[in-house]
Amino acid sequence: SSVTAEEIIDWDPLPVSFHAKNTVNPIRKIVDALSVPPNPEKSLIKLHLGDPTLTGKLPPCEVVTKALIDAVSSHKYDGYGPSVGVIEAREAVVDRYSTKAAPFTADDVILASGASHALQLAIEAVADAGDNILIPAPGFPLYMTLCRPHGIEDRAYRLDMKRGAMVDLKHMESLIDERTKAIIVNNPGNPTGAVFPREHLEEILKIANRHHLTIIADEIYGDLTYDGAEFIPIAELSPKVPVITCDGIAKRWLVPGWRLGWVIVHDRFNVLGDVKQGMIALSQKIVGPCALVQGALPSILRDTPQSFFDNVKDVLSANASVVYNSLRMVPGLHPVRPSGAMYMMVGIDRSVYGDETSFVQGLIREQSVFCLPGSAFSAPNWFRVVLTYPEEVTLEACHRITEYCGDHLNAAPLMSDVLLN
Amino acid sequence: SSVTAEEIIDWDPLPVSFHAKNTVNPIRKIVDALSVPPNPEKSLIKLHLGDPTLTGKLPPCEVVTKALIDAVSSHKYDGYGPSVGVIEAREAVVDRYSTKAAPFTADDVILASGASHALQLAIEAVADAGDNILIPAPGFPLYMTLCRPHGIEDRAYRLDMKRGAMVDLKHMESLIDERTKAIIVNNPGNPTGAVFPREHLEEILKIANRHHLTIIADEIYGDLTYDGAEFIPIAELSPKVPVITCDGIAKRWLVPGWRLGWVIVHDRFNVLGDVKQGMIALSQKIVGPCALVQGALPSILRDTPQSFFDNVKDVLSANASVVYNSLRMVPGLHPVRPSGAMYMMVGIDRSVYGDETSFVQGLIREQSVFCLPGSAFSAPNWFRVVLTYPEEVTLEACHRITEYCGDHLNAAPLMSDVLLN
Ligand SMILES: Cc1ncc(COP(=O)(O)O)c(C=O)c1O
Ligand SMILES: Cc1ncc(COP(=O)(O)O)c(C=O)c1O
Repeated sequence: SSVTAEEIIDWDPLPVSFHAKNTVNPIRKIVDALSVPPNPEKSLIKLHLGDPTLTGKLPPCEVVTKALIDAVSSHKYDGYGPSVGVIEAREAVVDRYSTKAAPFTADDVILASGASHALQLAIEAVADAGDNILIPAPGFPLYMTLCRPHGIEDRAYRLDMKRGAMVDLKHMESLIDERTKAIIVNNPGNPTGAVFPREHLEEILKIANRHHLTIIADEIYGDLTYDGAEFIPIAELSPKVPVITCDGIAKRWLVPGWRLGWVIVHDRFNVLGDVKQGMIALSQKIVGPCALVQGALPSILRDTPQSFFDNVKDVLSANASVVYNSLRMVPGLHPVRPSGAMYMMVGIDRSVYGDETSFVQGLIREQSVFCLPGSAFSAPNWFRVVLTYPEEVTLEACHRITEYCGDHLNAAPLMSDVLLN
Repeated sequence: SSVTAEEIIDWDPLPVSFHAKNTVNPIRKIVDALSVPPNPEKSLIKLHLGDPTLTGKLPPCEVVTKALIDAVSSHKYDGYGPSVGVIEAREAVVDRYSTKAAPFTADDVILASGASHALQLAIEAVADAGDNILIPAPGFPLYMTLCRPHGIEDRAYRLDMKRGAMVDLKHMESLIDERTKAIIVNNPGNPTGAVFPREHLEEILKIANRHHLTIIADEIYGDLTYDGAEFIPIAELSPKVPVITCDGIAKRWLVPGWRLGWVIVHDRFNVLGDVKQGMIALSQKIVGPCALVQGALPSILRDTPQSFFDNVKDVLSANASVVYNSLRMVPGLHPVRPSGAMYMMVGIDRSVYGDETSFVQGLIREQSVFCLPGSAFSAPNWFRVVLTYPEEVTLEACHRITEYCGDHLNAAPLMSDVLLN
């Protein structure tokens, strides 16, 4: 069974498909850029990973763990369920999220392997090669990763970082043409932490209504708001354009590894029938998410106490204050105060600190603090800070960032002194 | 927030994408055809569902359940893992499946949401619109479901049902052209239950080698053989063409709802480097399978006792004998004796019993026995029987099928008597 010479000689490398070659997640390249040696004298502080479970500060709720163990022990979820998910799990989504202003039934729910998969179902069902979908910038890079292999163009609409990361509505509308199929609205936003007020969402809906565009609402951080900000599901507002809501348990329940999400089809004009059937068909490719987690979903959604969510929000709010109040005092840094999700964006004055890659690399090399460069989110000259660490860690990180800036701020005038002499 | 007339009036139905519209699973339409009323006087016997957990006869191994509960309790798998899967789970696949004849490392393993997702990664990474992939007929319909939305042509090579469901090698080779990118080989086979002997696999490999085609080996029923049949992983044989093995825990460990599978890249000529990178990129779309099940995988693969598998094989073997010995005595039925997987195919003499749809519907209406029509597997004039039920249930099913055939066999000559008079 050894390989003979003949066998080896005449095989050339086999080509990868266009589809796979165009499946690109910018994060990978960017994380590679972070592989500079940290300062061995300082402990590592990793503010770059959007995984709340890594911080030790935020374990999942016991109710949730118990629900999963019960589902395993019941042996009711060892077999295949329907690709769209078991009925009791879809009913649980209805019980928790259907409202008078935006009612839906279990038939409008498709369970998925995380919100990521929910977004994949939505994007693949609404658009073809040559079509385009509007996505936010700064924004979550997965939208591109999901569009591009299909030849779907992702057109980035600006979030105005000077105005609290609200949508630049004029810019958004200017991007629409006859091949535009949907607008992805991520609220609360990653990486901005912005929470859109009601009137702002209504303005977006007006644009969608004028152009007959479906909204794909990425509400994975829904309800994860603080400092008085209110989360409003876009499907509850008028004008009532068709909305495909993508959500899941990763963030609010702090179990991203469990990979459970869902699509809710809000189809009040009966215009999404074919698209819904399309998503149902697409769900058959991988036959639904892990049935055990589906089996746990009713208890997860019903029994997690409000105090659990309140605690998470308190951590986020406290960290947001710490970071905002520290970094806004640093010359050449421009934090944008968030009120939702788990992140804060900080602008970098390029003329003071150089480009974002060297800033972020410098922070690692000198201070052992890891942040994600904004280019991961189509936002060069920014960096993103994660707000889920213990407050003392966050504070220490801010001290170090401040020290780093101090060191380099001092260097800058010295340089110009040199030039002036 | 009520809907105004204006809002309603001018929205037309929104189109579904070509991709989603062409995502078709024939099973659905076929199961719809089964919705005839069963005979209320007889208990239902459902031999149509390929889910071993439904029969009550085959619960998963306690080791497996415990492994999952341990993974949940450890809280080590609540967070995101790498998209390709956690290293300990990929190492576990290496420990169990890497052999001297077909060695691989954890870098060659990508975990997936079931073998279904593994197949999706492989198919999407090797072929583009206009390319073609060879698939077996009779065969598992998911291959089509995964190819067609991408415009990848699925070309069916014949399994010769008169020769134990071996590949018609001439036919297979005749289908190859310059756009052929891979051959899917499913061994042991669904729905045939055939197990390919070594020499047969080597003939297939020769064809692949001549035409420089990757083999996509669907070995989800690997090792699930009985009555002396030996399973040989195709990657272990010569000539050593590149093989992408797709596998998972659904069938041998009897937990299809847990949705864990994997791809193993056997790339001995270094010709699959780009394709492997492509599959890794594709895995990022949904960020890996449920991490809890990944965490359980090392124990699942290491600690399940051989007696567990032996018991499953004994059940399959006993049922295969029961069905084969009963149905081969029935005029106009032609069972093909299986020695692997969980199924048996039975040919129907159309001139005696009419077409397969009416045969299968008749079985339900008169005998409350459900079988899957062969058309679900591109095999009209056949039906598929599942072999995972308790032996007495299988026996009762065979009695009823025999009775049904008796009733209709009698009717047939009577009909011709009428014609002769
Ligand atoms: C905006 C946004 N949407 C979707 C997701 C993916 O969520 P899931 O882990 O459920 O796939 C993330 C994860 O970081 C996110 O930030
Ligand atoms: C031949 C074959 N391949 C793959 C699969 C899918 O396996 P999984 O449940 O791991 O996705 C099946 C399931 O029936 C099958 O019969």
